[in-house]
Amino acid sequence: MTFKVAVAGCTGYAGGELLRLLLSHPEVEIGALTGSSSVGDRLGNHQPHLVPLADRIVQETTADVLAGHDVVFLALPHGTSAAIAEQLSEDVLVVDAGADFRLQDPAQWDRFYGGRHAGTWPYGLPELPGQRDALRGARRVAVPGCYPTASTLAFLPAVAAGLVDASQLHVVAASGTSGAGKSLKPHLLGSEIMGNTMAYGVGGSHRHTPEIVQNLSLVTDQPVAVSFTPLLVPMPRGILATCSAPLTGDASAVRPAYEAFYADEPFVTLLPEGQWPMTASVVGSNHVAVQVTVDESIGRLIAISAIDNLTKGTAGGAVQSMNLALGLPESTGLTSIGVAP
Amino acid sequence: MTFKVAVAGCTGYAGGELLRLLLSHPEVEIGALTGSSSVGDRLGNHQPHLVPLADRIVQETTADVLAGHDVVFLALPHGTSAAIAEQLSEDVLVVDAGADFRLQDPAQWDRFYGGRHAGTWPYGLPELPGQRDALRGARRVAVPGCYPTASTLAFLPAVAAGLVDASQLHVVAASGTSGAGKSLKPHLLGSEIMGNTMAYGVGGSHRHTPEIVQNLSLVTDQPVAVSFTPLLVPMPRGILATCSAPLTGDASAVRPAYEAFYADEPFVTLLPEGQWPMTASVVGSNHVAVQVTVDESIGRLIAISAIDNLTKGTAGGAVQSMNLALGLPESTGLTSIGVAP
Amino acid sequence: MTFKVAVAGCTGYAGGELLRLLLSHPEVEIGALTGSSSVGDRLGNHQPHLVPLADRIVQETTADVLAGHDVVFLALPHGTSAAIAEQLSEDVLVVDAGADFRLQDPAQWDRFYGGRHAGTWPYGLPELPGQRDALRGARRVAVPGCYPTASTLAFLPAVAAGLVDASQLHVVAASGTSGAGKSLKPHLLGSEIMGNTMAYGVGGSHRHTPEIVQNLSLVTDQPVAVSFTPLLVPMPRGILATCSAPLTGDASAVRPAYEAFYADEPFVTLLPEGQWPMTASVVGSNHVAVQVTVDESIGRLIAISAIDNLTKGTAGGAVQSMNLALGLPESTGLTSIGVAP
Amino acid sequence: MTFKVAVAGCTGYAGGELLRLLLSHPEVEIGALTGSSSVGDRLGNHQPHLVPLADRIVQETTADVLAGHDVVFLALPHGTSAAIAEQLSEDVLVVDAGADFRLQDPAQWDRFYGGRHAGTWPYGLPELPGQRDALRGARRVAVPGCYPTASTLAFLPAVAAGLVDASQLHVVAASGTSGAGKSLKPHLLGSEIMGNTMAYGVGGSHRHTPEIVQNLSLVTDQPVAVSFTPLLVPMPRGILATCSAPLTGDASAVRPAYEAFYADEPFVTLLPEGQWPMTASVVGSNHVAVQVTVDESIGRLIAISAIDNLTKGTAGGAVQSMNLALGLPESTGLTSIGVAP
Repeated sequence: MTFKVAVAGCTGYAGGELLRLLLSHPEVEIGALTGSSSVGDRLGNHQPHLVPLADRIVQETTADVLAGHDVVFLALPHGTSAAIAEQLSEDVLVVDAGADFRLQDPAQWDRFYGGRHAGTWPYGLPELPGQRDALRGARRVAVPGCYPTASTLAFLPAVAAGLVDASQLHVVAASGTSGAGKSLKPHLLGSEIMGNTMAYGVGGSHRHTPEIVQNLSLVTDQPVAVSFTPLLVPMPRGILATCSAPLTGDASAVRPAYEAFYADEPFVTLLPEGQWPMTASVVGSNHVAVQVTVDESIGRLIAISAIDNLTKGTAGGAVQSMNLALGLPESTGLTSIGVAP
Repeated sequence: MTFKVAVAGCTGYAGGELLRLLLSHPEVEIGALTGSSSVGDRLGNHQPHLVPLADRIVQETTADVLAGHDVVFLALPHGTSAAIAEQLSEDVLVVDAGADFRLQDPAQWDRFYGGRHAGTWPYGLPELPGQRDALRGARRVAVPGCYPTASTLAFLPAVAAGLVDASQLHVVAASGTSGAGKSLKPHLLGSEIMGNTMAYGVGGSHRHTPEIVQNLSLVTDQPVAVSFTPLLVPMPRGILATCSAPLTGDASAVRPAYEAFYADEPFVTLLPEGQWPMTASVVGSNHVAVQVTVDESIGRLIAISAIDNLTKGTAGGAVQSMNLALGLPESTGLTSIGVAP
Repeated sequence: MTFKVAVAGCTGYAGGELLRLLLSHPEVEIGALTGSSSVGDRLGNHQPHLVPLADRIVQETTADVLAGHDVVFLALPHGTSAAIAEQLSEDVLVVDAGADFRLQDPAQWDRFYGGRHAGTWPYGLPELPGQRDALRGARRVAVPGCYPTASTLAFLPAVAAGLVDASQLHVVAASGTSGAGKSLKPHLLGSEIMGNTMAYGVGGSHRHTPEIVQNLSLVTDQPVAVSFTPLLVPMPRGILATCSAPLTGDASAVRPAYEAFYADEPFVTLLPEGQWPMTASVVGSNHVAVQVTVDESIGRLIAISAIDNLTKGTAGGAVQSMNLALGLPESTGLTSIGVAP
Repeated sequence: MTFKVAVAGCTGYAGGELLRLLLSHPEVEIGALTGSSSVGDRLGNHQPHLVPLADRIVQETTADVLAGHDVVFLALPHGTSAAIAEQLSEDVLVVDAGADFRLQDPAQWDRFYGGRHAGTWPYGLPELPGQRDALRGARRVAVPGCYPTASTLAFLPAVAAGLVDASQLHVVAASGTSGAGKSLKPHLLGSEIMGNTMAYGVGGSHRHTPEIVQNLSLVTDQPVAVSFTPLLVPMPRGILATCSAPLTGDASAVRPAYEAFYADEPFVTLLPEGQWPMTASVVGSNHVAVQVTVDESIGRLIAISAIDNLTKGTAGGAVQSMNLALGLPESTGLTSIGVAP
């Protein structure tokens, strides 16, 4: 059986990556492709790497155009998914790559995004305890943010095992520029980006902060708090998250906790001791490379994860959740093999 | 039926890309992986993106280790394939990614590479007229060089149709750094490469020059000569070849000639008028993007092609030829979809 | 004596590079800084590298604001310099980094830029025969385009000495992205640029084409024609121009012609034989590195030049011309030393 | 008066940057240039950006060659400076860009570098309280490491004012690749670096760790400990250090403490509130951009600094110290203006 899928927001980076993965997915057929300012254009003008779809014409994002599909992916600006989602049949699987349905607390939504909270959908991170089952058969899925995916997976085994002070989590996450989308902002121009590493959203203001807290609160009774500092580094894809916290448990329990936690995960690997994650090894793949150590000089656990922000951090995570929702094998159409160098 | 393949030179860039493609190829099983200075290492130390093979151990490159496979890929330094190839059974498909068996003229071999000419094997560029048939059932294949693939495919329709003066071909080809291999040379260090575009091998000295001449001589009775200038540009993968020659035919015949020539090719696309090739659209894919125009100010045809030097320019071309040699559909395990941005 | 200078267009790349150079120039004092959409902003928000000017406020670009300076630099969008220039006193030195006053032929202006031709000012390329004298004491200067600077200086000795067929000139010039300015266009985003080399404006349509022809026509009675193909490569700064033409003179005369032509130039160097230009060696400098050879296989001269498009290609050339116009030593405030790696 | 300077290790990145700065320094004359494997080569083959020195010949690094200079810079591999330094006259100013004479504790030297401790020289970080005076008239100077410069300057005001728990310092510092020198190691190849961010030396093993502790211990009676995680990011130059610690003082005292501490420093700037450091703004300059905030969610101070690892982090710091040692104005030959974009 083949599932017919539509992608709303097909000219952006999330939409492009969804289509790249879906083109290789054996159980889906690509239906409507919609956009906004690019309606009527050949897709090949916006996504020249998607050769088989080059002559497809971008349609308008309306409920009519998106009707008649088994799956609808929404890769739209934050705050705009709800309006279209509520017009789609409850029988259709709707997978939202935006932030609209991730947060459970309306106050947090209002503080970090502003405006009316749209609601909360099943959260598309199967590696969270209990979440894999919650996604099976779901008809609405909220895809996690890229930074929360990287940060959560780095901290999860330590927080779940009570090895760190969860109220003192600290993340410095270096991201490639596609995480900012195809936005026409001066600081995202190639001339500004190449040769440049910069910090932004420092001190608690980044929108992904409450999502990390929400995720990790699922596995501990302690209060969870995180200080999150994102860096923009000169590469198109990839996140390397350096996650640390005061060690409160036994140092010798750290590595076994990580090994056990990820032993059966299809897409998360604890690297052999001494090998550290690099983003180049996960480009284009759904793989998450994790390493962990304890810095004894200050008694601190340091866990580092590498993901591709567009794949596992967005479109790959979305397809992984789609597979679970549709009852397909979880890894269908996904790979753990990166494109390097 | 599954074919068992071995890769000699598994820690380099060509070997890594071969393995990346072979891991996704539905008709092969990966057998021995061999190297030289890395014998005994985990492959994961050298190719961390090849996650499913991370724990494989690199073996020594010997005829014994390579025996018992249906296909053996050689990704070895130039001049070293012959010694191992002659020890392999004639029934085994041997695909050489090096230069050893590309040239037909021993004098050219001696001039550009030096030493004894090893011989000539069927040349793995199916797009060359007659070559697809020559590859079917072959048991020895010489994989083309990356620059010759890009340059030949840009010029081929024009030279075959007699539209240009083939004795006055001119190529300026910008290449990413993986084309130089994993060689420890100062000018290939990241610090030197980033922010830098440089010319090298100017004036007729680059080894790929005679290979371009040999290819294009197949489709014309005119004498063929080419001036080839390679540039190193700051990106890991990709070749953009700007190929020009005096127009001797009718300008209006140019576009139809290209359209007709590539109409049925699975991996070569003539872009719509006004759209120019970019390397980002072919990263990780076997796709060749071509565009052509005539600059009327000096009566010159300008054809531009973009390929991924490691995929269509090396490992993808090798797998495409393997498919033909083994009687599989030519595109098996290959894609025309790039990884972008 | 100190000259007071104003810079109109201070938030763009040309304006920023002008200010970088002027800050180190011993004979100038920086006066008004003007912009358009950024009026009222701290300059530090737009040009954080210009630390001593960080707290300067961007003023509006009006004749009143620009009055009272000895020198006014215009770094404005093409087609907008004339309106402001004609309001400035004839005693003030006005140096236009835009294209408005470069071309002598109104028909070429109309064809490549469109609209009314503003006129022609002394052309700021002192290396052109006779031009150094023309710039001494000038009160209006048109700064050359970046591609014309690189291409002209690569071809000049060969064309002047009658060694090539000037009606068959061919240029493939790879440029960093700052050449496109701080324009908010999707293809200039960092995510699109990194890892990507692309061609654009192929086939005679690039606006810098007639300027190259105009320059080289000064040194030959032959008709001059050029085919110009620009490439965008993933680096912020630098142009590497590969310039070729059929050799019509004696190959042995080529190197001596280049040596003699540039023997006394302060900023142009013919590299030793065997060393080829690279853009990294000229970043931030006013230096032009040139190399030349003959490819005997097709009887073609190949000359390659490297410049920094923002320095010698724009702001450095502007300061060099200002020095001549003001009667200062030509190299004042300029360097031939690059910033590498 | 002009001081005659020699540079030992002239073909590496530190040596090249020293020469770039010294060429623009009005009070020095460049004497002997020495190397090891490159003895007899033109310097232009190794440092093509140093145009005025292109035809200088690299000499052997011996006491005889280095004799007769007023200043000798050593840019040699760690552990090799002592042997040559002890042969140089005590009247000569010797500035060591290596690690040999930085640490005061022989046990730390042995733990992090191994072998015999060479001794301790005046430490070339004038911004450390008391250190400016210690450098005046010195005849031996140890140039700080690049990471310690960035990290120390980010933490210094907070630690000195007792605003943080100095025993819980945490640094994640992203560095460009020139920090690793011109070493021929596979992970430093351009193909590996571009598009890649990786962690290394995590968990307390990086050699710069004890140097940070030593510096900050000068301004507090508390025990000092730091967890240091370096990242390699795809750019040639620059360090962005994200430095954090538990806030123990009053949040409102943080910004005033930083303002006061750096009010009179010629090369360190506290950015206006809301503007965060970026490495692009300090490329080629001796400037240090600092910003600080408090993340109230976990009560943690976060200070971020940006430097050019080769300039303020190595050669610029060396020249700044030389100026103090020679009695010249501290900023002579140095700039706070970066080269951007």
